[in-house]
Amino acid sequence: MITVYGDIYSGNCYKVKLLLCLLGRAHRWQHVDILAGDSRTATFLARNPNGRVPVVEFEDGRCLWESNAILNYFATDTAYMPRDRFQRAQVLQWQFFEQYSHEPYIATSRYIVRYLGAPDSRAADLAARREGGWAALRVMESHLREQAFLVGEQYSIADLSLYAYTHVAHEGGFALDAYPAIQAWLGRVAAQPGHVTMEQFD
Amino acid sequence: MITVYGDIYSGNCYKVKLLLCLLGRAHRWQHVDILAGDSRTATFLARNPNGRVPVVEFEDGRCLWESNAILNYFATDTAYMPRDRFQRAQVLQWQFFEQYSHEPYIATSRYIVRYLGAPDSRAADLAARREGGWAALRVMESHLREQAFLVGEQYSIADLSLYAYTHVAHEGGFALDAYPAIQAWLGRVAAQPGHVTMEQFD
Repeated sequence: MITVYGDIYSGNCYKVKLLLCLLGRAHRWQHVDILAGDSRTATFLARNPNGRVPVVEFEDGRCLWESNAILNYFATDTAYMPRDRFQRAQVLQWQFFEQYSHEPYIATSRYIVRYLGAPDSRAADLAARREGGWAALRVMESHLREQAFLVGEQYSIADLSLYAYTHVAHEGGFALDAYPAIQAWLGRVAAQPGHVTMEQFD
Repeated sequence: MITVYGDIYSGNCYKVKLLLCLLGRAHRWQHVDILAGDSRTATFLARNPNGRVPVVEFEDGRCLWESNAILNYFATDTAYMPRDRFQRAQVLQWQFFEQYSHEPYIATSRYIVRYLGAPDSRAADLAARREGGWAALRVMESHLREQAFLVGEQYSIADLSLYAYTHVAHEGGFALDAYPAIQAWLGRVAAQPGHVTMEQFD
């Protein structure tokens, strides 16, 4: 059986749990306590030299890391990946947007607030990250005003990727009241058959 | 004919030029002057609402953005993309590593030095980014000590992606003297048949 190393409250790890549950794929979940240094041990670095979660370890010992690479691996040839070549590239477009323009601002703000308790020493950092986060949300809002899901007309791993940190953005200080299209989209994602929440696996 | 909007000295844009040249794919190159605000105009934002280069515009007017999504689109079913499903996921793993753990440190340091002239106001920011950049280079060095290319035994768009900013890392203050495996790999990438440099398109 495959093993996933992660923290269910990390959006990047939750992404993997959510897709594996949607696909009904059996897996073992191994909790990694990042604050306790679990992702910096020699054993962990042998699985991912970059020292980050999530990591998937396959039955033969091979490991795959980077949440969106893992999603693409498991979603290949399933309903969560478009068949059209251009749409598959658009899925990646939104996933790279997520990692470059969304996660460093929205997820990191949440990390500073939720995991670190928003210490004064991080106040300036937090303010700067909020700015980038609002910019990413504006891009999503304008796109989701035009279409129900990020790519084509169906739920895909592009939606799953961006859902992970957007649905908990308020924990990082991003109230979504002024983003009705995002709110409606969050509802559509959560209403997918087989959807699971972070809390279910606490 | 397709149009690529970009700045050839931006590694993210150079990636696209390099792959299109390797593939012999005809394209029109439209220079975008980021510092002059060209990527924030209404016309540009209609092509990419996130206001970043590169963007590829197809003959039918559809646009694709995010450099690595563009590479995946064009590399599909070519020699620059592995056929094996796990290796294709590893290509994405290294490309997401590039965008999250490498580009924000190495490319941004270079941007601060080369484009902004390393102003005093950015000194603390630059120092912090250097730290992340060295960490990314250590991950690459240890991996490239074990194998000639990032994924499998062949040059792929994973190498192309990481080459883009690594080969100009010195312009951001990253001397690679202590990274012999990276230096040898840079040489192998530059020796690929059909390889082109940034300067060729200045």
